[in-house]
Amino acid sequence: MTTHKKNAFYAQSGGVTAVINSTACGIIETSRKHGIKVYAGRNGIVGALAEELIDTNKETAKDIAALRHTPGGAFGSCRYKLQCFKQNCIEYERLIEVFAAHNIGYFFYNGGGDSQDTTHKISQMSQIMGYPLACVGIPKTMDNDLPFTDTCPGFGSVAKYIATSIRETGYDLASMAATSTKIFVMEVMGRHAGWTAAAAGLASEKTGEPPHIILFPEVIFHEEKFLKKVDTCVKKHGCCAIVVSEGLRDQNGKFLSTSECRDVFGHKQLGGTAPLIAKLIKHKLGYKYHWAVVDYLQRAARHIASKVDVEQAYALGKAAVEFALAGKGNIMVTVERKSDKPYRWAIGSVELEKVANVEKKMPRDFITPDGYHITNLCRKYLSPLIKGEDFPPFKNGLPQYVRLKNIPLRKKLKKKFTLI
Amino acid sequence: MTTHKKNAFYAQSGGVTAVINSTACGIIETSRKHGIKVYAGRNGIVGALAEELIDTNKETAKDIAALRHTPGGAFGSCRYKLQCFKQNCIEYERLIEVFAAHNIGYFFYNGGGDSQDTTHKISQMSQIMGYPLACVGIPKTMDNDLPFTDTCPGFGSVAKYIATSIRETGYDLASMAATSTKIFVMEVMGRHAGWTAAAAGLASEKTGEPPHIILFPEVIFHEEKFLKKVDTCVKKHGCCAIVVSEGLRDQNGKFLSTSECRDVFGHKQLGGTAPLIAKLIKHKLGYKYHWAVVDYLQRAARHIASKVDVEQAYALGKAAVEFALAGKGNIMVTVERKSDKPYRWAIGSVELEKVANVEKKMPRDFITPDGYHITNLCRKYLSPLIKGEDFPPFKNGLPQYVRLKNIPLRKKLKKKFTLI
Repeated sequence: MTTHKKNAFYAQSGGVTAVINSTACGIIETSRKHGIKVYAGRNGIVGALAEELIDTNKETAKDIAALRHTPGGAFGSCRYKLQCFKQNCIEYERLIEVFAAHNIGYFFYNGGGDSQDTTHKISQMSQIMGYPLACVGIPKTMDNDLPFTDTCPGFGSVAKYIATSIRETGYDLASMAATSTKIFVMEVMGRHAGWTAAAAGLASEKTGEPPHIILFPEVIFHEEKFLKKVDTCVKKHGCCAIVVSEGLRDQNGKFLSTSECRDVFGHKQLGGTAPLIAKLIKHKLGYKYHWAVVDYLQRAARHIASKVDVEQAYALGKAAVEFALAGKGNIMVTVERKSDKPYRWAIGSVELEKVANVEKKMPRDFITPDGYHITNLCRKYLSPLIKGEDFPPFKNGLPQYVRLKNIPLRKKLKKKFTLI
Repeated sequence: MTTHKKNAFYAQSGGVTAVINSTACGIIETSRKHGIKVYAGRNGIVGALAEELIDTNKETAKDIAALRHTPGGAFGSCRYKLQCFKQNCIEYERLIEVFAAHNIGYFFYNGGGDSQDTTHKISQMSQIMGYPLACVGIPKTMDNDLPFTDTCPGFGSVAKYIATSIRETGYDLASMAATSTKIFVMEVMGRHAGWTAAAAGLASEKTGEPPHIILFPEVIFHEEKFLKKVDTCVKKHGCCAIVVSEGLRDQNGKFLSTSECRDVFGHKQLGGTAPLIAKLIKHKLGYKYHWAVVDYLQRAARHIASKVDVEQAYALGKAAVEFALAGKGNIMVTVERKSDKPYRWAIGSVELEKVANVEKKMPRDFITPDGYHITNLCRKYLSPLIKGEDFPPFKNGLPQYVRLKNIPLRKKLKKKFTLI
């Protein structure tokens, strides 16, 4: 079979996660089993355009296995969006040219909504140009906003990190509240969808447990109502632990973090929704506060990754290779939920044209009527995604992660390509 | 022996840590073995003044054992400093009165520098008043700034969390740097001493590994020199991961975070040294950034506590009881380092009058000559403190922590006490 002699291209795209390398591990280990060589794009699709490919065959089996427990994107990722191909075919033609030069027959693209769209376009272009290429998109986004898949690899681990962190800081806050700090505000990522903020809700298994309030990007911020809720909470529980999404908006639809003031250096002051909320409470209610912005920590925290997440990330990579080898392309591999309790899942797939640029927001019935917490329906959905621990190996007290050699493949094309 | 029929008082003081409850566990389990009842102050020493004591005998052995892996302060802590007792004896007299009413013969106070000072004063007062009371201070502070002890329980776990977090986010940053974010700034606690910032340095085991720059409170911030260092780093490594202490100061000795601007609500804008540093880099060098402020997360992260730290916290609690039972009071129990490699330690003690209000800062030879990283000497000191993992039990994907019943002891005094 000639298809088995073709090579595979794999690239990571957009913001990385704690488990995107687990997918890479699944792709490479499965390809190796089938005698397929995997060339990775250095810094995502940009590496393909520039013909900067990494020869993963030069890595040891041990190092490839270690990808399963290493955060970040081992080959580099990028925030580069290909042009709409009706307007500009040059990039797509260049990609096919590079793939042809390196006998690439399989295209695996690991990313969010944009990446699925790109995969779809590359698949179309390969047909137009008569170049056989099995294109499979593999979901990845900590935001969990891709449709058709039960969840997106990366999200379960962020969810576990956030729920763990607000539980732990909740214990801290409760200890201090009687004579000192009564308010703790933790800001999480998720500019448009509140999945990450919602995950915090898993920490409060009984009424009154932190977080007491969650501020979702889907729910317009109402200052007066919010302050009343905070005050009631402090009077009842002695303190108030709040999780706020960076994407919180005011009644005009503007991000709250868009601040207009200047700092000591005379620069426009940064956002940060957490300090804003904390200061508002102090000003209006007089309570002492602490705040945190977890930023990259939440999506890099491989040390407390969800086992389910790590397994799904790997399984999706493995399945992508198997689908492609079976001649099934122009799809995104998905996680299908078979049952909630016990959580059972299987790998499925969906045609790429259905996926492209559809955003999955939190359903309204996942948020309580008052807009400040999650419902049991949401809990039922989220709960299985954070299950199980998958600690990395530790040495000298620190998690041990791998750095690949990332040896470049020799270039074959004479033409250099300039990014648009 | 009549001393064995006396009860013990235990209180937690100041900012709590991931392992202060491990000390509580050591105190209570050891006391129980010797037939001593432990009454805890609700919200620290304030509970003693108000005669709000918690009867720990009402807790099950299982729940007390679970304190070992539970963050925060199980009985509540406080930020309440007793008056200087030459100026005001009322508080000290009240304490002795409460202790006499409940037949307290042992006083265990778990806190930082202020708490050791308080313990010393209570010890003196008990002598003046002729009330026999064995007073033992147990060190606790994530800042690691107490003298005479090799380290302070709480610090090792913060150190492990910070080093792990900057390592993980360093992997994330490196993936994104080619086409997007090149700068990551993580702010850590430690207003006056740079121990927590220094701990981040443990993550860079080889040259060029994150963090690339550490900004200590002990080293005056020099904008031009710093920016040059950042730029060199980005040009060499493609990115720059920075850890900054909240206590960073400018050439006038002022905290950098003391900002004078106002936010969208018209309130004075909060500090946050990390966003300030990030914005400065963007403004002067043009690099895209991310920033994080970890705040409470660092000192509450029991899920990634240092095993050495948990063990020392417990051992100090146990030793405090044993010293007190042996009639040795007016001391603080300490950790004594016996060797670096392998790390060997033992429990020691120091007279309280020596400890009171002495602050242990980072020695200058623990910081590299350029002021931006740690030396091997520092590494030798810090390294053993983060060793070993001691994961808490997990259920439903989250760490399981205990909430005690905290049943109040019946009050015996008629007089109410009003805090000054």
